[in-house]
Amino acid sequence: MMILRHSPASPFVRKVKIAAEVLGLADRIEVQDADTVAPEAAFLAQNALGKIPTLVLEDGTTLFDSRVIVEYLDHLAGGGRVLPKEPTARFAALRLQALSDGILDAALLIVYEGRYREPPMRLQSWLDRQHDKIGRALAVLEASPPDQTDVPDIGQITLACALGYLDLRLAGAWRKDYPRLVAWLDRFAARVPAFARTKPA
Amino acid sequence: MMILRHSPASPFVRKVKIAAEVLGLADRIEVQDADTVAPEAAFLAQNALGKIPTLVLEDGTTLFDSRVIVEYLDHLAGGGRVLPKEPTARFAALRLQALSDGILDAALLIVYEGRYREPPMRLQSWLDRQHDKIGRALAVLEASPPDQTDVPDIGQITLACALGYLDLRLAGAWRKDYPRLVAWLDRFAARVPAFARTKPA
Repeated sequence: MMILRHSPASPFVRKVKIAAEVLGLADRIEVQDADTVAPEAAFLAQNALGKIPTLVLEDGTTLFDSRVIVEYLDHLAGGGRVLPKEPTARFAALRLQALSDGILDAALLIVYEGRYREPPMRLQSWLDRQHDKIGRALAVLEASPPDQTDVPDIGQITLACALGYLDLRLAGAWRKDYPRLVAWLDRFAARVPAFARTKPA
Repeated sequence: MMILRHSPASPFVRKVKIAAEVLGLADRIEVQDADTVAPEAAFLAQNALGKIPTLVLEDGTTLFDSRVIVEYLDHLAGGGRVLPKEPTARFAALRLQALSDGILDAALLIVYEGRYREPPMRLQSWLDRQHDKIGRALAVLEASPPDQTDVPDIGQITLACALGYLDLRLAGAWRKDYPRLVAWLDRFAARVPAFARTKPA
C-alpha cells in the first residue's frame, strides 16, 4: 500500500484523491492524517516542508506536491489518462491546473490570515489582493468554461477542487457572480462521482 | 518570438531563463518587464493571477507558471532534456523541483511580509514558520546533495535558483550552516554559465 498523508479539508489532497479514484488506484492508497500546523517529526521526515499531500511509496520514497503525485499516479495507471500526452491537450490541462492552483494559493492565504493572525494583525489590503486574484481568474473561466472530457484531466479536476474550496472556506460567495461556473461544477459533480465522495464534512 | 513577462529578481523567472538557455531557446524569447505589485491590464489579460513568469507564445496563447513553461520549453527542444523521460530520474527531478519551489514559496512569504506590511503588522511567528520550512529543507539537502547531471535537470536548476534567492533576499545567511550546499552551488555555477548570466543585479 502507498500512504497518503492528508487532512480532510485540503483542496490539494482532494486533487490527488479524485485523480486516484479516476485512475482506479484508490484501493492502493491508505490515507493517514497529518497535522500541518504543528507537524510531528515522522511527517517532517517524509516531507521537510511539512505540507500535504505527501505520498509515501511502498519502498519508502516520498513524493510531493500535488502536481507531482498526480503525475506519478497517472504514470502508474499507464500514462496519458488525467495528464494527456498529446501536447495541445497536455499544456491546456497544465495551464488550467496552474490557474486553478493559483486560485487555491490565494484562497489559502486568505484562510491563513485568519488561522495564524489575531484580528488586529490581519491586513485588509493583503486579503483584497488575494480576493482580486481569485475574482480575475474566475472571470476568465466564466467567459469560457473549460471543456469536460470523458476522463477528466488534471486541469478540470483542479478547477473543481478550487470551486469546492471556495464553497467550503469562502461561503460559496462566488456562486452569485459566475453562473456558468456553477453549471460547470454541477456537470463535473454529476460526471465524476469521486468529487462528491471527497467532499469535506 | 515568444515573450516572457518577467522581473529581474524573480527566482521563478530565473528557472525559466536558465532552462531556456540550457535548451538553446533563449534567442527565441524576448523578455518584457511586468509589475506584479500593481499589474497593468495588458499583463492581467495574459495571466489573470498577475504572476510571473508568464510566457506568451507566437499565436498569443499564454502559459504559466514556471513549471508549465519549463515543461513546454523542454517539449519545444525535443523533450527529455531538463525534464527526464525515464521515470525514476523524472520523478526525482520533479520532487527536487517541488522541494526547491517550497523553499522559494517560504522565502517569498518572508519577503512579502516586509513588502506588503508595515512593521507593526509583521508577525514573527509567521516568519519563523517560513524560516523553519527553509531550514528543514536545506538540512535534508545538505545531508545528501543531489547529483549534477551533464544537462542540469529542472530539480537542479530550481535548487540553484532557490539558493541564489536566499543569497539575494536573506543575505546568504544559509551559507554558514550548509557547506556542502555551498560547494554544490559553486559546482553548479561553474557547470551552467546561465546561472551567472541570470544573476539579479
